[in-house]
Amino acid sequence: MMRPRPPHLMTLADLSPRQINHVISHAHYLKTRTKPWLGPQPPSEFTSNSDGKNSIKKRLPPQSLFSKTIALLFSKRSTRTRLASETSIELLGGRALFLGREDIQMGVNETVRDTTHIISGMCQGIFARVGDHSEIEEIAKWADVPVINALSSLWHPTQILAGLLTLHEYAPAFKPPPPKSTAQENKKESKPTVSKLSELPPLTIAYVGDCANVLHDMLVTYPRLGHKMRVAAPLQYRPPKEVMDRVKELGCDEGIEWFEDPELAVRDANVVVTDTWISMGQEAEKAERLKAFEGYQVTEKLCKGAHPDWKFMHCLPRKPDEVDEELYVYLLQVFYGPRSLAFQEAENRKWTTMALFE
Amino acid sequence: MMRPRPPHLMTLADLSPRQINHVISHAHYLKTRTKPWLGPQPPSEFTSNSDGKNSIKKRLPPQSLFSKTIALLFSKRSTRTRLASETSIELLGGRALFLGREDIQMGVNETVRDTTHIISGMCQGIFARVGDHSEIEEIAKWADVPVINALSSLWHPTQILAGLLTLHEYAPAFKPPPPKSTAQENKKESKPTVSKLSELPPLTIAYVGDCANVLHDMLVTYPRLGHKMRVAAPLQYRPPKEVMDRVKELGCDEGIEWFEDPELAVRDANVVVTDTWISMGQEAEKAERLKAFEGYQVTEKLCKGAHPDWKFMHCLPRKPDEVDEELYVYLLQVFYGPRSLAFQEAENRKWTTMALFE
Amino acid sequence: MMRPRPPHLMTLADLSPRQINHVISHAHYLKTRTKPWLGPQPPSEFTSNSDGKNSIKKRLPPQSLFSKTIALLFSKRSTRTRLASETSIELLGGRALFLGREDIQMGVNETVRDTTHIISGMCQGIFARVGDHSEIEEIAKWADVPVINALSSLWHPTQILAGLLTLHEYAPAFKPPPPKSTAQENKKESKPTVSKLSELPPLTIAYVGDCANVLHDMLVTYPRLGHKMRVAAPLQYRPPKEVMDRVKELGCDEGIEWFEDPELAVRDANVVVTDTWISMGQEAEKAERLKAFEGYQVTEKLCKGAHPDWKFMHCLPRKPDEVDEELYVYLLQVFYGPRSLAFQEAENRKWTTMALFE
Repeated sequence: MMRPRPPHLMTLADLSPRQINHVISHAHYLKTRTKPWLGPQPPSEFTSNSDGKNSIKKRLPPQSLFSKTIALLFSKRSTRTRLASETSIELLGGRALFLGREDIQMGVNETVRDTTHIISGMCQGIFARVGDHSEIEEIAKWADVPVINALSSLWHPTQILAGLLTLHEYAPAFKPPPPKSTAQENKKESKPTVSKLSELPPLTIAYVGDCANVLHDMLVTYPRLGHKMRVAAPLQYRPPKEVMDRVKELGCDEGIEWFEDPELAVRDANVVVTDTWISMGQEAEKAERLKAFEGYQVTEKLCKGAHPDWKFMHCLPRKPDEVDEELYVYLLQVFYGPRSLAFQEAENRKWTTMALFE
Repeated sequence: MMRPRPPHLMTLADLSPRQINHVISHAHYLKTRTKPWLGPQPPSEFTSNSDGKNSIKKRLPPQSLFSKTIALLFSKRSTRTRLASETSIELLGGRALFLGREDIQMGVNETVRDTTHIISGMCQGIFARVGDHSEIEEIAKWADVPVINALSSLWHPTQILAGLLTLHEYAPAFKPPPPKSTAQENKKESKPTVSKLSELPPLTIAYVGDCANVLHDMLVTYPRLGHKMRVAAPLQYRPPKEVMDRVKELGCDEGIEWFEDPELAVRDANVVVTDTWISMGQEAEKAERLKAFEGYQVTEKLCKGAHPDWKFMHCLPRKPDEVDEELYVYLLQVFYGPRSLAFQEAENRKWTTMALFE
Repeated sequence: MMRPRPPHLMTLADLSPRQINHVISHAHYLKTRTKPWLGPQPPSEFTSNSDGKNSIKKRLPPQSLFSKTIALLFSKRSTRTRLASETSIELLGGRALFLGREDIQMGVNETVRDTTHIISGMCQGIFARVGDHSEIEEIAKWADVPVINALSSLWHPTQILAGLLTLHEYAPAFKPPPPKSTAQENKKESKPTVSKLSELPPLTIAYVGDCANVLHDMLVTYPRLGHKMRVAAPLQYRPPKEVMDRVKELGCDEGIEWFEDPELAVRDANVVVTDTWISMGQEAEKAERLKAFEGYQVTEKLCKGAHPDWKFMHCLPRKPDEVDEELYVYLLQVFYGPRSLAFQEAENRKWTTMALFE
């Protein structure tokens, strides 16, 4: 029974910094290549279906999933994750087979092991959004095809990949004022340049809020890529030992500072990140959590000590408690558009990497 | 924030008569071109996959949605609308991403605005079947991609497009007896000719029953295309001011006559249309509604004053209260087949138009 | 109204032995051709999207469902059936439109007849998993497109096709020791050879357990293909008259022996088959059923009288009562992999056959 374990992705801790950067730059390549083609086309392409084929081919991403099926096992509602995975699989020529909790017998009439075997035999990959992290570990244990963690109680690797791509796109904004000759370039600073992925200078990234899956994957990733992390969280909501062990194992702990005061945490930060304080299933603890996170709402005032050009990131969905509306509108303009695509591309990229690994 | 509003379609009132006719004739073109190909093929095409490709290409509709994803946001059960949209998107090479009320977080964990932004960033169009019309207006307000109303409390544009295509296919049956030389043509009168879309003579269209979304879209459409409408409805079920304002704004009111007696309404009608009296969600009012619509059941007897060759249309699903079985069997033979396809093609066409508009 | 009935498949009793063998050998062809291509590819195919196209084409199954939509009407949860049908339709280039009980109005707001007409008009085939067999007969009665029974209370034809393909793949293992010259071949006995489908020698197939849809389709199939069946089942769980009539009509009864003692039934069997004793919906009868099937658990001990090389088949999902873990692990190794694909290919094949028939 010694079969090689397929290249699963449970957390970014599974990937080396080199692999992570490779994913990001390939995602950028896919985005730059594909996005213009997804926009409206000149009418000629719609009336004739033989002409224009060549131009489509040029901009189409590699059809590496052509005729292949990826099972999406989602045990929770999802908007972003589902849309990102379905649309990216489609772009790569494959078919996403969405299986919700009601659709299949896994864990109801059949063991996770049996169902996983069946899915492995018929699909070429599994993208699973589970509740407890042990569920996806169980799936990964029995699957003969690659399993990607689309979200679990402990980790959220695809979210951090999307964040990284976004940061790369904004890299020019984080750099010191350029010398004269490139001053003209600099005028476009507020918009991401998509033609070539810029290198990212070492950043200070502040995380303000609940320590959940998004932060966990940041902790095992950003320090290894040369960035500093400053985390503000109430003591009782710090990451579990399981995560901190992984952080230490990868030598990431040296790049992380912990705070209880959010104002201190955001000092000199280039980027401020927060996440929902009340995730799905935690509605019962709402009052308690709102109290614990008093003063954690990200506002311009809270961030007065941050770098003047600080950027804001949020994995969404947003609840108004966490970030004020004014910032949010800003977010909508500068971040949303690229972000969603970033997510999608990171997504795309992973499947491609996976295919390469196999 | 001055971005151009994408070409949404909330009601046919949004389109000019010329645009409506364009949609219909393109739908006819797609149907004529594609339908024979969807039927059974000679065995050779199935055993070899390299030959026969050319013949397939000729009959395949333009793949204008190739690699694109259209989000279907359906807040209600649906058979026709869902099948029509999924199959037509598939025919155009795209992918339909069905998202039911249980699948996403819109309005549950996230505002409609946020979810719409996310969907806009990942999909290339939205086809939404909502409850209250305000819901789709909210989606259209925030979407950066075209939004098509698949059914709302106020309007049902795709249904009327399907009806129009069907009427055009039956146009020869509505025309006065042709001169001698074309008598042979006339023998095929009872079957629609699909090779070329006939022009429609001015018709008298009677609507008998509840004034709901289907009628509303008829009211803003048929009079502008040169047809007369005669509507029979209990006073308490007349269209809301919002709809009547639109009707007046477009100058449609002059082409509409109102009745309380269905027998008077159907007089000289070429076409009699009805709709369900008890829509989904109105089951509580059932007894009251059945009483109000007593005498509104469409039967041969009721329609004895109509044009001898009158045709019958119904948007389905049908409840036996509304139309008697005898008529219904007739309906199944002459109307069903083309209707379903008509719907699909109208559907197809809209996306193509939309693509052109962009 | 005299239209020809499309070539529905309600049970394998609808097909001649020649047609069944044709389906199996075509399924084998599809599997041999397609399976290697579904595995991981050399990296070159993923980085370039113009090269490598030719090699893909060679291994791609015929795209006989290209741009066509097959409706999957599933009234019950399903893992195997759903995955098999969606992935095989995808491989043939088509689109599976999954419609669960909650998705459409069939039987809720609309008669089965009306909904079937609508689906027939928009899709090119129906694959239905129903409760009572009368439901699928009703669908088949009104459908203008082929209807395939994906599982009903009475029959389960796709399962038996999958089983047959699996048996054919293991055919060498059932044959008497070959003459000297082919001794080398014989060394690979324990692995199925997939390059050419072997003929199946006459087998003795024992069925131990509840007489349900799987057994019913075996009873009308295996005897016609030259195999003997030995069935062990408590008297009260014998097949209904409806099934036995079909068995007699096809002359299958002469190839079937009935037992109450499982040990007698498995004597000299080449293959032992069982099925779940408690199907979905029968949970209430659990205690009663467990008692009736005491001693029916398939174990090495029970099967000591079987042929030394006996094989085991189970349609899954498995409950531990039915077969012991030791056997099950064996099953996972030798049977699962091919089985799942077998199912998929049988599936594929049927659609192709159907297309040929039309």
